Amino acid sequence: MYSFKNDYSVGAHPHILKALSETNDTVQPGYGEDAYSRQAADLIREKLQSPAAGVYFVSGGTQANLTVISSVLKPYQSVISAASGHINHHETGAIEATGHRIEALPAADGKLTPALIGDYLGTAMEVHMRMPKLVYISNSTEVGTHYTKAELAALWEFCREKKLYLFMDGARLASGLDAGDIGFPDLARYTDVFYIGGTKNGALLGEAIVINNPSLDEDFAYNLKMRGALLAKGRILGIQFAELFRDDLYFKIGAHLNRTAARLTEGIRALGFGFSTDSKTNQIFPILPFAVIRELERKYDFYVWEKRDDGKAVVRLVTNWAITDAIVEQFIADLGECAATT
Amino acid sequence: MYSFKNDYSVGAHPHILKALSETNDTVQPGYGEDAYSRQAADLIREKLQSPAAGVYFVSGGTQANLTVISSVLKPYQSVISAASGHINHHETGAIEATGHRIEALPAADGKLTPALIGDYLGTAMEVHMRMPKLVYISNSTEVGTHYTKAELAALWEFCREKKLYLFMDGARLASGLDAGDIGFPDLARYTDVFYIGGTKNGALLGEAIVINNPSLDEDFAYNLKMRGALLAKGRILGIQFAELFRDDLYFKIGAHLNRTAARLTEGIRALGFGFSTDSKTNQIFPILPFAVIRELERKYDFYVWEKRDDGKAVVRLVTNWAITDAIVEQFIADLGECAATT
Amino acid sequence: MYSFKNDYSVGAHPHILKALSETNDTVQPGYGEDAYSRQAADLIREKLQSPAAGVYFVSGGTQANLTVISSVLKPYQSVISAASGHINHHETGAIEATGHRIEALPAADGKLTPALIGDYLGTAMEVHMRMPKLVYISNSTEVGTHYTKAELAALWEFCREKKLYLFMDGARLASGLDAGDIGFPDLARYTDVFYIGGTKNGALLGEAIVINNPSLDEDFAYNLKMRGALLAKGRILGIQFAELFRDDLYFKIGAHLNRTAARLTEGIRALGFGFSTDSKTNQIFPILPFAVIRELERKYDFYVWEKRDDGKAVVRLVTNWAITDAIVEQFIADLGECAATT
Amino acid sequence: MYSFKNDYSVGAHPHILKALSETNDTVQPGYGEDAYSRQAADLIREKLQSPAAGVYFVSGGTQANLTVISSVLKPYQSVISAASGHINHHETGAIEATGHRIEALPAADGKLTPALIGDYLGTAMEVHMRMPKLVYISNSTEVGTHYTKAELAALWEFCREKKLYLFMDGARLASGLDAGDIGFPDLARYTDVFYIGGTKNGALLGEAIVINNPSLDEDFAYNLKMRGALLAKGRILGIQFAELFRDDLYFKIGAHLNRTAARLTEGIRALGFGFSTDSKTNQIFPILPFAVIRELERKYDFYVWEKRDDGKAVVRLVTNWAITDAIVEQFIADLGECAATT
Repeated sequence: MYSFKNDYSVGAHPHILKALSETNDTVQPGYGEDAYSRQAADLIREKLQSPAAGVYFVSGGTQANLTVISSVLKPYQSVISAASGHINHHETGAIEATGHRIEALPAADGKLTPALIGDYLGTAMEVHMRMPKLVYISNSTEVGTHYTKAELAALWEFCREKKLYLFMDGARLASGLDAGDIGFPDLARYTDVFYIGGTKNGALLGEAIVINNPSLDEDFAYNLKMRGALLAKGRILGIQFAELFRDDLYFKIGAHLNRTAARLTEGIRALGFGFSTDSKTNQIFPILPFAVIRELERKYDFYVWEKRDDGKAVVRLVTNWAITDAIVEQFIADLGECAATT
Repeated sequence: MYSFKNDYSVGAHPHILKALSETNDTVQPGYGEDAYSRQAADLIREKLQSPAAGVYFVSGGTQANLTVISSVLKPYQSVISAASGHINHHETGAIEATGHRIEALPAADGKLTPALIGDYLGTAMEVHMRMPKLVYISNSTEVGTHYTKAELAALWEFCREKKLYLFMDGARLASGLDAGDIGFPDLARYTDVFYIGGTKNGALLGEAIVINNPSLDEDFAYNLKMRGALLAKGRILGIQFAELFRDDLYFKIGAHLNRTAARLTEGIRALGFGFSTDSKTNQIFPILPFAVIRELERKYDFYVWEKRDDGKAVVRLVTNWAITDAIVEQFIADLGECAATT
Repeated sequence: MYSFKNDYSVGAHPHILKALSETNDTVQPGYGEDAYSRQAADLIREKLQSPAAGVYFVSGGTQANLTVISSVLKPYQSVISAASGHINHHETGAIEATGHRIEALPAADGKLTPALIGDYLGTAMEVHMRMPKLVYISNSTEVGTHYTKAELAALWEFCREKKLYLFMDGARLASGLDAGDIGFPDLARYTDVFYIGGTKNGALLGEAIVINNPSLDEDFAYNLKMRGALLAKGRILGIQFAELFRDDLYFKIGAHLNRTAARLTEGIRALGFGFSTDSKTNQIFPILPFAVIRELERKYDFYVWEKRDDGKAVVRLVTNWAITDAIVEQFIADLGECAATT
Repeated sequence: MYSFKNDYSVGAHPHILKALSETNDTVQPGYGEDAYSRQAADLIREKLQSPAAGVYFVSGGTQANLTVISSVLKPYQSVISAASGHINHHETGAIEATGHRIEALPAADGKLTPALIGDYLGTAMEVHMRMPKLVYISNSTEVGTHYTKAELAALWEFCREKKLYLFMDGARLASGLDAGDIGFPDLARYTDVFYIGGTKNGALLGEAIVINNPSLDEDFAYNLKMRGALLAKGRILGIQFAELFRDDLYFKIGAHLNRTAARLTEGIRALGFGFSTDSKTNQIFPILPFAVIRELERKYDFYVWEKRDDGKAVVRLVTNWAITDAIVEQFIADLGECAATT
């Protein structure tokens, strides 16, 4: 049964497995001091056109989020997130476990704006409330939308003005960038810190945290070690990110994710179905009748995202690095058949 | 330059790389629900002769330690450790970061005993002091020693009597078991929880937490997720541990580590040098003159562990899964030469 | 200028000052082991008809909330609160600072119901989200409303069924009880833990935490000490609560607070003004035109709670133990005059 | 039975009770914004000759310690303390509960020195260990000793050089200052932050935190609120400290504590008994035979501090603000009688 459930249902891109094999016998220092990690960090800095950025590799997204956020905030400070933000919804209170409150703002399309944050700040600045200090955004977002360069720049300007830090969760960064007009070097310009998601973009595991703001970079490695985020064989993260950034494999995978998702969208729309959000990324949210969903579930694995009262539900379909055009076409054909027979 | 610095300086055992390759294309659920993780857990339970044990895979040792300890203790409770224990010395306060105090007891050979703990308890049980509730031991220890079955059983009985939990850090478990008379199933009998170290025993990364005490197993997965320890592609941990336990590869690697370290010990002793601790495991601690160390450092990488006043220092040599007899013999020959010429 | 800003703007009830003076010279043990604290705890248990309840005295409400909540919850568990709940709005993230997430549910009248909580639970029970385990309610609430006995009993039954604990914040307990039909002994029956607010009901400072559920009472004093909530001269809390409960002074003050607030409500309504909530307690929320408010602010201190678009605002008026009928009548007269002249 | 058990066994100095009574009816803002707290802070700044110092009042010593330390340190930083320090021994892990490790250094006389700290730093500065950043000292210490001005100045210089902050726990500050040559204004010069203990020096409760280093003063009130340390009726702390500092009552009480303890020391020594530490403060530690202790315990309450093997024990005797010369002379006479008859 093929899975559209998420972007981590298969292993790693073959180039990554190959790189792990080829480097396996070399003797390297531990804890991220190895040659591969240094090389990967250099490649990322080069693509960012930002020679002084701090680059650190960790095993997963929750680990990245909790380590970054708890290192940026003072004890009495909070992080602002869209209510749909991953840290607010699906990380089992990992941020609160480090002592920090999340100020969750409702945002229909999963995106924060200066207006939304400004309204909140108007109600918040006094000693009996947590002091908001960090803005957390995801790109692409948890509902498949993405930020434009203008939107990101506006958020950045607003954060400067309000003395807030800006942090981008890039678990699905390649897809988010491919969908819009933000260039990779813009991330160094318009965020204080962000991370580059590997797990959902062809790696076995791993995310690369990039710290653009030097004041947030000081002693950051202590936080990594303290949160259990520093791998002894740090090489295995370095090897993968070096491979992803050496020949733009990272961005090519992002394009593949979006192209296959776009073909799905087109096929589903042609069958007459609508969508709950307008997504150009690798997560799409068609609205299907219950009967069609029940038929489709015999052949495919995916999430039923939100039941509606009209006998329909929103489902989530996600593409991964290994999905082929054949699978996509077969799915559209199968959906057409389900729709015809129910 | 060859490294005796640690047991994580090379990649993974070839069987593990092969398994990762062969399983790469299969579609699997995320977050440890995959078939490989279930299979690995079953293999571990079978070898333990403990069908009800909880088995969970995480990326590293600090992650394992902080997740287990913070899940076992109530807010006002502390963990007892040898002063040399990894959590006390080399984890950047990871345990304290979860809110818990470590009661560090000096232990010359890195091992806790009922007598040591009993003396401490005599001074500790009242409301103005943290309530000790968990005993943390490492096997093998950070100074190369190991527990015997009688020692472990005595600690276990003592902990039952004093209503303390017993947790074994098994970052170097294979080496610790191979050095002594503790059988793998004894770990289910004589600990409340322990972990099986993969990173230092042939894996790319990964440790398997085993919870024997059902009351500590309840809802444990929430803790994993909250601490950022639940990998999205959990399969890569399951695949590795299945490989390590399918045909006893885990124990075979432990035996190799100890055999090569024993040969090193024998050769070094034959050259007339002493040792700071009596180690049967894969960490050995010879005492060498400064001049010899300086010569040796031209060809080998290792830690100078402790300088002494008499012109000598303790160094630490560690063997890894990939070390060959030829490397060991070459090292002994080179040491002999250094000793002769300085 | 007289203050209707809060219920802690004057000192202590004269009986309490007298008791502090009369007991000043006696020699007593520290940390709550004194005779007065024991006596106060006995008096509270007697009035509750609950001889086994655990009773503990702390200096303030935030201290009470954070100590109780962090002692009840396991690390991965969260507390459910009305969005208007004090812990969610006005305690600077004190609960999150102990590592716990607050699940804030919108509740127009500041009160939680089984239906509200049930809806939330329907979306929450899986490992990627915090596990809700404790329900926090305030009585009276932050918006002046109070729970009836039937409402409390229904919440209690619901919590039993769903294996949730129920905690009542009683910062304004005397006012809340006086306003409704909940008897003091009902609190032992229908909550797992609650606290009796002294600061806002005639004491210099102090709240009495009462733990009805024996499983939550175990080792609770360790939590108190660890959170800095155990006063060395604990006697000063015991002396005050003994005085408050010896001859029902606590309940008499609550009745005075509500009676004076009711007279204010009646007078304000007679002048033709409405209210944002229907309060029978000592916090009332009249809606006044800006012009009237500006005039009134020359003579009285109070909070402008919420500005409206129609040239009016909700203001909060709070009565305290020392307020006299004369002050109340004067306020009504002054308001009438302001209204007439603007 | 008279108590030499601690310095908080009786109520408040009569001047303080009188001040609480006289101010009881005034209407004041809450949360430390009242006129008395402002006046008390001004008096303290004036005596310190430090017009810009931040002054904050909290209810107790553990509260002061945990709020200050957790506000100064970044998550990965630790605090250095003498092993006998109150935060290390008798606060139930309150510091660790805020996420920070205590580096406890053995110090026979309870005092830290540049040499002791320097030795520790030599072993500690790398990413796998917590980064020490704050030095915690008590004056007077937990074993009755006190710092001289030269010792304090040397520590201060050392901390500057090593980029460490210096924090003095002044739970027994008046006694500590009276015993030595440190002037009150020296505390502004030679510490980054300290607190003035009220509870053990005549107040009902309360400690005044003084922040000399402006960078540590920023937003400090948020920390107070978040830790539950901000009293609603903050006035009761302000009133007491205003009274203590208006006419030097604070220092007069300190002198009384030391004078009566010195008379005790003299009398005990004249009876032929020795002491475990050389104390000029209000805690003294005579060494008495078990048989004498048992007799003495019939008439007096005190701590047996440390049993020795030779049939003797160290006991701790503490004087308080209310102790009279008559009580002291009676104790010496009774001890003489016990000694003669056992």
